[in-house]
Parts: sequence; C-alpha cells; structure tokens
Amino acid sequence: MSEQSPLDLPEGDPFGPHNLPYGVFSTAADPAHRRLGVRIGDHVLDAGAAAHALGSPYAQLLAQPTLTPLLAAGRTAWRDVRRALTAWVTVPSYRPDIEPLLHHLSTVTLHLPYEVADYVDFYASEHHATNVGKIFRPDGDALTPNWKHLPIGYHGRAGTIVVSGTDVVRPSGQRKAPADAAPVFGPSVKLDIEAEVGFLVGTPSALGTPVPLAGFDEHVFGVFLLNDWSARDVQAWEYVPLGPFLGKSFATSVSAWVTPVEALDAARVAPPARDRELLPYLDDAAEELPGGFDLRITVSINGEVVSEPPFASMYWTAAQQLAHMTVNGASLRTGDVYGSGTVSGPEVHQRGSLLELTWNGTEPLQLTNGKRTFLEDGDTVTLTAWAPGPDGTKVGLGEVTGTILPARGA
Amino acid sequence: MSEQSPLDLPEGDPFGPHNLPYGVFSTAADPAHRRLGVRIGDHVLDAGAAAHALGSPYAQLLAQPTLTPLLAAGRTAWRDVRRALTAWVTVPSYRPDIEPLLHHLSTVTLHLPYEVADYVDFYASEHHATNVGKIFRPDGDALTPNWKHLPIGYHGRAGTIVVSGTDVVRPSGQRKAPADAAPVFGPSVKLDIEAEVGFLVGTPSALGTPVPLAGFDEHVFGVFLLNDWSARDVQAWEYVPLGPFLGKSFATSVSAWVTPVEALDAARVAPPARDRELLPYLDDAAEELPGGFDLRITVSINGEVVSEPPFASMYWTAAQQLAHMTVNGASLRTGDVYGSGTVSGPEVHQRGSLLELTWNGTEPLQLTNGKRTFLEDGDTVTLTAWAPGPDGTKVGLGEVTGTILPARGA
Repeated sequence: MSEQSPLDLPEGDPFGPHNLPYGVFSTAADPAHRRLGVRIGDHVLDAGAAAHALGSPYAQLLAQPTLTPLLAAGRTAWRDVRRALTAWVTVPSYRPDIEPLLHHLSTVTLHLPYEVADYVDFYASEHHATNVGKIFRPDGDALTPNWKHLPIGYHGRAGTIVVSGTDVVRPSGQRKAPADAAPVFGPSVKLDIEAEVGFLVGTPSALGTPVPLAGFDEHVFGVFLLNDWSARDVQAWEYVPLGPFLGKSFATSVSAWVTPVEALDAARVAPPARDRELLPYLDDAAEELPGGFDLRITVSINGEVVSEPPFASMYWTAAQQLAHMTVNGASLRTGDVYGSGTVSGPEVHQRGSLLELTWNGTEPLQLTNGKRTFLEDGDTVTLTAWAPGPDGTKVGLGEVTGTILPARGA
Repeated sequence: MSEQSPLDLPEGDPFGPHNLPYGVFSTAADPAHRRLGVRIGDHVLDAGAAAHALGSPYAQLLAQPTLTPLLAAGRTAWRDVRRALTAWVTVPSYRPDIEPLLHHLSTVTLHLPYEVADYVDFYASEHHATNVGKIFRPDGDALTPNWKHLPIGYHGRAGTIVVSGTDVVRPSGQRKAPADAAPVFGPSVKLDIEAEVGFLVGTPSALGTPVPLAGFDEHVFGVFLLNDWSARDVQAWEYVPLGPFLGKSFATSVSAWVTPVEALDAARVAPPARDRELLPYLDDAAEELPGGFDLRITVSINGEVVSEPPFASMYWTAAQQLAHMTVNGASLRTGDVYGSGTVSGPEVHQRGSLLELTWNGTEPLQLTNGKRTFLEDGDTVTLTAWAPGPDGTKVGLGEVTGTILPARGA
C-alpha cells in the first residue's frame, strides 16, 4: 500500500499511542449506534470492533455504548485494556485488522461518553480565589479563613453536563446591582467561562469509608477539560448564604475525550509549597506520587488565545479533593465527576475566567472583532491543553468548546 | 371467610385507598426480587403481580424493580394507574385476586424506590432561615437581602440519599470554634436533623426551557418526608463562600413511600402572605391551584415527640422552587429530588432542627433518657406526617427514620 496509514502519526502528535483517550462516537451511516472509541491522531478506533476482530477478552467490555462498564471494571482492567489498545495501534502485525476500523474525526459525532453520577466543583487555585475575593468582597480578606485548611467545594448539577460542541443558550435569571432597590429579571449580562480540569471516578467506594490520598489512582479513571459556564450577575445575587446555584446550573461543558490517569505519569509534579500545616488526611508531603499535574491550558475566544492557565500552580491537588470529598464517609459512584475549580496562574495572562481577565468588566479584552468584558452571543470559547508525556512526547487533552446562543425569547 | 380482610381498614387509617403511596419491596423468601408495591393500611400490594393477575394494560409498567419507569411515563399514566389501583383495593369483586398478593409490612424489606438523578435542597421556611441567621450571623440581618426575592437552594449529593431505616454513621470532619487558632479533625459534635418534605420529579424537561409555576403537576410525581442530616460544626467552618458540602453530604434519609401529588388535592392551601413583590415567574397569586400543602409533621427522638412543624407555613412553595430551579434553562430528569428545606413554624415547638430547638445547644431538650443538645450515638430520629384527605380522611406520608451509629474508628 502506498497510502500513508493513519497510524503513522507525525512526530510530536499529542494524541499518539502514549495518550489513547476514550470517547463515544457514532457515524453518519449508523447514527443510533453509539460505540466506544479510542483516539489516535485525527482518527478514532472503534474499540469494540477491534477487540472483536482480534478475539480480545475485553470484547464485551469495549462493545458498549458508554464508557461506564469500563469505568466500573476497576484499575486492573483499565491497565490491561490500555496495554492491549497500545499494542493494537503500534504493533505492525495488527494493522490489517485495525486500519479498517479507524474513522476520521471529521466523519463522526462525539457524545458524552459516560453517565454522570454526582458532580462536585472545587475552588482550588489560590490565584483565582484571591482574585474573586478581591472582586466580590473588596472590604474583607480575599481568602476566607478556611481556604488554606480545606479544598472548598460544592455540588453542581449533574444533569446539565454537556459534551464539547454543544451550544450554550444564554441563561436568564435574577440580578441586582448594589444600588438597585429590587432585583430585575432577564438574560445574564455577565456570562463567563471557568477553565477547569475535570476528574472522572471509576471505582466506587462504600458509604461510611473515606478514601485516603493514596486512593486517587485506584478510584480515578481519567482526566479531561471542563468549562464551568457562569452567569456572574446571577451568581453574585444568589450565592449568599448557600453558594452558587442557577449562576452555574444551566450548563457545564466537558471534553468528549477522557485521558487515562496512567497517560499522565510523566506530568506528575509537586504542588506549590503549603504555608499552613495540613490535617493528616490532607497532608500529602509523604505521598509516593506527587499530586499535581503539569497541564498547560489554553483559552481561546473565537480562535484568539486570551489566556494560558497553568494547572501545575493549583494549591489543592485532585487527590486531596478526593480525600476531602469522602472524609465524612460520603461514598463515590462510578461516573462521579469533579472539577478542579478555575485554573488561574499568578500572571494576568494566566487567568482562567473573564471575571478575572477583565477585572469584573472594568478592563476589557481587545479582540480582533471588538472588545470583550463578558461573553457576547455568537462567541465560541475553546479550551485545549497538553502535558509532558514519556520521552519528550506531549499528551493532549481533548478540547472543550461551546458557542453562546442568544437567550430564549430575547 | 370469617377472617378480616387486610382491605377492611379501620376508619381514619391514613394509608387508606385515598392515599396509595408507592414503594419497592422484597420478601425474605425471595430477597433479590425487588418489586413495585402500593401500601394499603399495614400491607403492601405487589402491584406488578396484581396487574398481571387482572390482565391490566399496566402490567409491564408495574412489574419493575423500581418506580423509575412509572415516573417517566408521565401524568396521564400516573392518573390511569392510580385509578386502576384504587379500583383493585376497593371493588369487592377484585378481592379474590388481590388479597393473596398483599404482604404485611412486617414481612418485607423496603428499598429506595427510585434512582435519584439530581438532588437540590431549598431553604424555604422564613422561621427557619430567621432562626439560623440569628444563630450563625448574630451581628447581621437574620435574612439575607435575596431571601424574599427567590427561593434559595443548592445542589446536594444524590449518591448518599438513603432509604428510611438505614443507619447513619456519625461523620468526621474539620471544625473550628471562633476562638481556636486552627481547625481540628474528629467526629462531629453537633450532629443534627432537618425535617423536610421532598418532591420527586417524574416528567423530564428540555435543556433551555424553563418550567412555569403551572408545570408543577405535570412534572412532579410525588411527595415524601426527608431528613437532611447535618453536621453543624463541619458546616459552620466550611460553608463560606460556596455553601454546605461535607456538613450535609454524608447521608440524606427519605421515606420508603412516595405519596402521589394527586392524593394531596384536599391538602392544598395558600402560602403565607408575601411582603415583597415577586418577579412574574415566581408570582403565584393568579395560579389556579394554591401552592402550599397542609402537611403536619411530627419529629420524634427515641419515640418522644420533640417538634410538630407545620408545612403550610412555608414561605416558598414547591411549585415556586421548581420554576426557580429551571428558570435559567436547567433541565429536569426523571428521578430528580428536591427538598423543601427545614420546616419550622413560628412557635418553639414547631422548629424542625435541633439547632433551632436548643438554640445551638444553649437550651437543651429534656428527654426521658437525658438532655439533648445535638444527637448522641444510638439516638433514633423519626419523622411522620399527615395531611387532610378527601371527606375528612387523613393522608399519611410514610415515615423516615434513622439511628445514629458511632463514628468509624472512634
């Protein structure tokens, strides 16, 4: 064959065989048939069909319309399946069986690849929390007294998590400026993004039994990008005393691709130095693996890069978040999702929200097609990221993108 | 037959044929076989077996291990199935078929009857919110400025909703008294209850489309009691600025029985007069049906009544909560649960939490077996309730009960 194989990837491709993120796709020819796929370069391998063709013992686990059965199968299965997939896309003798089962990404539709159980969102960037504190509570301390003692988090709406590419209708709601006598109702005028990293739980835990820091690799299957769309005006009026609700619950976008935690081994880094002593269940100083991940995120609006938040700067790690979330005995379920909280670095061009980038609208961004304080109808926001992989490679996280549609009836 | 039929109920039985709550049960003889049941008096009717025996068109909908398919079937099906069930337990000619399918409650195990999708908890009692505000924020206004303009709510943990009768392990967590230099970790010393009414969503809604006030009866299938266990010391330290998290997420107990909204027609009452003008989507002055429900709740600790909260006193109605929860376009799913928030009336003996009943532990309750500020290990808390039914009858809500076990490792 003179044609180049899709398996012969250009050097440095962030979706090479060291990555192999999972997704769920369908084709135009068979739109109702959702199948588990594994991304390699610009193609997706029909994982169930490949397992069947090669007589793999994982054929049943992979011939599924969602990732959920694999998530529930546990860490040994995750490792074994990944090893098999790596062989299928790298060992030349498999090519005749594998190549016909590759679909170019431009020919498939991607779906939310798992059923979301509970969704928790954290607030783990010191730079973000400090910026938000200064903006929303200018007369008080920027960080609340608890911030350095525990990873602050709250539950979000699992049912409105949508896959990358889904349009986001501008939400309406109540807002009230401090000078107004009463709240008004209408489309949000401060629609924002939050650039986050999400974590997907595979292995459940028992009610009443906390998961320790070292349980992260046993329970967490994978990593993906997450955009926690936020209506800042709605949020500001509603959030005292019980936290964000309608300012967040209209939509949360996630990547169509879940990168296995195992693919990020080379990206593990120590979190920033802690300046408060941590209670034992959160103290990760003696952990075998460092808890941070060196993910470099890029935030684009209509194709223009507006920020490059560094995930390595997060004060609280995903392992600490998992330990905290369960220390009261709360159980985990397969399909639980948690978000890191907005990723903001110390520099202005590393801030993960427009709230921070424009300082609550007072310092607009200059884009090619005009100034931006918050999002306008028609704006498309895209998050991408990569991390160092083995042997100088890059591991890409699947993008998360969404376009703002006008408010209904507006 | 000289034996009394279980269908011949004593006059005034709150689980008569005008109620017919749904649950899921199994028997000792066949513990793995979960079946949909309908409560009548002290018995449960095997609804699927009855439908089969009588050749009902609903046999498939009722021969299920959960209530979820019936929830998803929509309001017309709910009404038709209820009409059929009412006939089966009241029309004498059905007795020979029905009576063999009745199981005494003492012989069955009850299970969580539906899969919980999202769980939202509100804060809708003015008396409760005022009491909590005075206790937690003694220097500020008791009610936050938004309280009379919107029903404040937040998302809770769906995965730790447990059925009545499930023991509750005392949670551990961080707490910090104002005078302490740093937080300490250990079993909660302020474990509390919240007496609430829960609502179960049947019919889903589309993302982007708000549900109006009048949509309550189309979307909400049923009503039940809910105990939102709360670790007040954990909650007080964690809840600023993003709301309650671990102080609530360890367990939420719900009744094993779901009473159809239709059974509460005679209990509908107008909510209290509102002293702020409401935005149109919340203004229920012109609604056809009054939004309140006259449910009279009883809270018992170890069998002693400690409070009698009146649900009719709630400032915000369940219909307003549903309209608010979706006004930003957030969708509903079959199995969504929302709680009213703690039900507290204006009187001391009508308060729905120990936080309020003992004024944060400063005014202990005197029980037969000792004083109580907050819950002690071994305490059993039980909520019951009834509402006026048709023709002078009473409609009972299934109890929700739970016993506190000592903290693990404590």
